[in-house]
Amino acid sequence: MTDIAMIEAARARLDGHTRRTPLLSSPFLDEIAGRRIFVKPECLQHTGSFKFRGAWSAISALSPEVRAKGVIAFSSGNHAQGVALAARMHGIPSVIVMPSDAPRIKIGNTRAYGAEVVLYDRGKEDRDAVGARLSQERGLTLIKPFDEPLVIAGQGTAGLEIAEQAKEEAIGKADVLVPTGGGGFISGIALALEARAPQFLVRPCEPQGFDDVARSLASGRIERNAAQSGSLCDAIITPQPGNITFPIMSRLCGSGLVVTEDEALHAVALAFSRLKIVVEPGGAVALAAALFHGETLGEAVIAVCSGGNIDPDIFRLALDKFPV
Amino acid sequence: MTDIAMIEAARARLDGHTRRTPLLSSPFLDEIAGRRIFVKPECLQHTGSFKFRGAWSAISALSPEVRAKGVIAFSSGNHAQGVALAARMHGIPSVIVMPSDAPRIKIGNTRAYGAEVVLYDRGKEDRDAVGARLSQERGLTLIKPFDEPLVIAGQGTAGLEIAEQAKEEAIGKADVLVPTGGGGFISGIALALEARAPQFLVRPCEPQGFDDVARSLASGRIERNAAQSGSLCDAIITPQPGNITFPIMSRLCGSGLVVTEDEALHAVALAFSRLKIVVEPGGAVALAAALFHGETLGEAVIAVCSGGNIDPDIFRLALDKFPV
Repeated sequence: MTDIAMIEAARARLDGHTRRTPLLSSPFLDEIAGRRIFVKPECLQHTGSFKFRGAWSAISALSPEVRAKGVIAFSSGNHAQGVALAARMHGIPSVIVMPSDAPRIKIGNTRAYGAEVVLYDRGKEDRDAVGARLSQERGLTLIKPFDEPLVIAGQGTAGLEIAEQAKEEAIGKADVLVPTGGGGFISGIALALEARAPQFLVRPCEPQGFDDVARSLASGRIERNAAQSGSLCDAIITPQPGNITFPIMSRLCGSGLVVTEDEALHAVALAFSRLKIVVEPGGAVALAAALFHGETLGEAVIAVCSGGNIDPDIFRLALDKFPV
Repeated sequence: MTDIAMIEAARARLDGHTRRTPLLSSPFLDEIAGRRIFVKPECLQHTGSFKFRGAWSAISALSPEVRAKGVIAFSSGNHAQGVALAARMHGIPSVIVMPSDAPRIKIGNTRAYGAEVVLYDRGKEDRDAVGARLSQERGLTLIKPFDEPLVIAGQGTAGLEIAEQAKEEAIGKADVLVPTGGGGFISGIALALEARAPQFLVRPCEPQGFDDVARSLASGRIERNAAQSGSLCDAIITPQPGNITFPIMSRLCGSGLVVTEDEALHAVALAFSRLKIVVEPGGAVALAAALFHGETLGEAVIAVCSGGNIDPDIFRLALDKFPV
């Protein structure tokens, strides 16, 4: 299981290959929220999301012989791009399995990062069977998106940075808000902060209608989302918390915060105008919670913006709906 | 005159108050340019541009008695916001003199950063007379935008960071491209790199029609721009190089690079899609030169993106004209 030693070991492997994203702030955001808000912009990470950390952590931990055969992942989103680039930077092949109806831009980007994209027909083929066949034929190692200790350890390196940067900014106590899908990112951050900044309270943030983690934490058992798609916050939509991540979240995280899609879009627009960063709606739910759901938050908030791979049309929509 | 000791002293005063902006990159940009491109995103600096560095440097160097009376600046742009916030963070008053026809958003932002904005009628009043009267009445210190050694020293702290970050990235040799108006930013960077990374060649970048620095460097004497306005790259439009900055640029900089307005907009769109940062057209001219004018550039380029205070309509225009 992931612990602080694994996270520190991941950090040593990531060093020089991932970016130490800065901590940003704006007096305009502080004023809206009525408290100090700091933003950790993982949209500035390689491939535009934190996923690169976990991918690098998992791939770099493989033995050279196993690694040389290549890796495989199932994803049409940020995990795909993270795995593709991390594999290329290791000089190994990667295969990304995506549904054939995935957006062209995502397929194109993943290929451009050096991956072989294998498309399957959602209606006729079984994704796992396609993947299993490829893995067996070529000896590829599966890189899971979140329910995997090495991936969680990689995501946790962002938590180590938060602890250090909060100290530099003299932030004594804070709520740390994290956009949450399967829970790999928040689990890594929570484990890192348990060891390095235990006075911080880590809390998951989700969009309305897809608040499986908030509900699971409230009920004490894994709850599922009714819908599996249909949110602008697609980057953080998963059916349910992971089997590995849920116990970590249960032990370490405070209650979940839930925002509307419009609040997420409003946060996207404010990140544009006030922080000069590009955030996707799913990546902006923690900032939205910090800005618009402060009832249960303390004096200082660190909101993680987890990704920036947004369709230009959605970005325009955010600017149109929420002019400065 | 500004030298490395003054820049190091400025850095000590800025420490903990300004952001160390990261160094970003994207394989997509490398591919377009056919070389390695690194981006120093000063749009992520406080108030959305490098101007905050120079403002902080100048204000923090005043004696406590003089500083307490307050500061004054003439600007409707990034310098205004930098001075306003740096003054507020020092707990002193600031007066920003702007033409009454300045965009509402710029007036509003400057006020929101804590400044008293004094408007004057361009047709009827003399700006300098308005400023001189206020300065005399209240004992305000003028913070010049670029032709001032302490301001240049503050901008030079970005150069110190570039030297350190280039070392971390193992960039041995590089062209350092800097968006240039009056020349304060590039002069500071060039002086810092002369001392800390003398193998780097610093080069000014400007928009077509406003290439006073490129022409001045070519002719060896200060040349003026024919027009004073009418460019989307308004943030870096000045009548001519400064009397202090021109000799520094002449001694230390390579020849200037000139880009079209459309190339600057294209760079804005690519910074959005590939780096997840918001850059204004004037702030994007160095990235545009790196991407589209590589004929005279070496294997690696560090392009500074100097600011991100862009009107949403101009941002939409860039995304419309240059879809990914």
